[in-house]
Order: sequence, then C-alpha cells, then structure tokens
Amino acid sequence: MPAPVVGRHVYADLYGCPRIVLENKDLLVKAVKKAAEVANAKILEIKSWTVGGEHGGISVIALVVESHIAIHTWPLNNYATVDVYTCGEKSDPWKAFKYLIDVLKPKHYVVHYSDRSQLPIEI
Amino acid sequence: MPAPVVGRHVYADLYGCPRIVLENKDLLVKAVKKAAEVANAKILEIKSWTVGGEHGGISVIALVVESHIAIHTWPLNNYATVDVYTCGEKSDPWKAFKYLIDVLKPKHYVVHYSDRSQLPIEI
Repeated sequence: MPAPVVGRHVYADLYGCPRIVLENKDLLVKAVKKAAEVANAKILEIKSWTVGGEHGGISVIALVVESHIAIHTWPLNNYATVDVYTCGEKSDPWKAFKYLIDVLKPKHYVVHYSDRSQLPIEI
Repeated sequence: MPAPVVGRHVYADLYGCPRIVLENKDLLVKAVKKAAEVANAKILEIKSWTVGGEHGGISVIALVVESHIAIHTWPLNNYATVDVYTCGEKSDPWKAFKYLIDVLKPKHYVVHYSDRSQLPIEI
C-alpha cells in the first residue's frame, strides 16, 4: 500500500458579504484560481454556474489533486460558504482560506477544520 | 432579504473499500447520480476525473442546487472520502450518504455533520 493519504479540509460559513462580490462570477473564479495557487494546490479543472430563483447565486468548484475547492454564494442573503480541501503535505488550505476571506469580505464567519487524512487503523 | 439559507453537509472518510469499486469511474458516477436522487437534490452538472500517480484515483463532483456532492478515491489505499452537501428543507443528505456507503462498502468509516445553514445573527 502507498503512503497514507494526507487530506486537510477547511470550511466556513460567511455572513454579511457584499452582494456585489457574491454575484460577480468572474471575480469568484479568479479568486478560486488564486486561492489554489497560494495553497500550492494544482487545479485540474474549474467550473462555475449561475443558479436562478429566490435562493439563486453563484457556485464555483475546482477539482484540485485529489480534492476540491468550492464556493457557493447567495447574494440576496449576503451569505456564502467556502470549502478548501487539499491533499498532500505540500498544500496549505489555510492560506487559500485566508485569501478567500480577503476577497469575500464577510463581516463574520464560522470556520471549521477536518483532518481528512487516512488514519492508521487495521483493516 | 429572502428566507435564511438552509444547508446540511455530511462528510466521511472511508477505510477498507474494495479497490475494484474505487477504480470504477462509471460505477462512481452512477452512484453519485443515484445518491442525489435519493436525497431529493437536483444535479445541475456532474464531472469525473481520473488522477494518475502513486496517490491517483477517481474524483466525481456533482453540482447540486446550490451545493455539491463529491467523492475522491485512492484505490491503492482502499481509501475514499465522501461529501454530501445539500441545500433546502426538502433534501436529505443522510439518505445520499447511506446509499453511497452501500456502494463503496467500507469496512470502517468516520462520519461528520456540519450545519451550513445561515444562522440568525445581526450584521
């Protein structure tokens, strides 16, 4: 078996973000690209969508090796969520997260961390 | 402002999954489609990738309104991670999660839950 998988997942719920930021798809795509760069995570593909309706907004999801970065926004609620999940010792999801906070400018946020690494258990 | 956003995120790290399952991209794509269906979450787009190298494997990510379902696998490690993040009162991420466990057949797993809903705070 190869070396155990190392995965780290930072995710947060962001309140009071400016609507003008949350509805700007180009800005959000650029932010995810730059976030991957500062985290030292290689993007394989990045996709973005505009969702309509009362709870519509923008979603941007990037596949990075082998994990993902996702932003979902609800501009009318000034609300957004961010997931930065990176693999490997050389990537730092916290750097990407801090960068995204600078871009999304929440008034408040709640942040969580989960170690998605493979723990040494007998199977 | 519209009604507060309701979001629920179930995520898990899965140990001892059969390699033959974790390297079957078609099976994993079908599983994510079916998982969205049982969770009552509408898929807007689904993408899959094969990643090479020692820690290579399959990734499947679906954008659902407005959230995501993601599976990353490491077949040589018999390891996979699953994220089921759904929005709205009518979707149930636990149903999707249970379905994915049935498909991925881990010997053990660690599961977490995060409420990604917008909490009532003054901003």
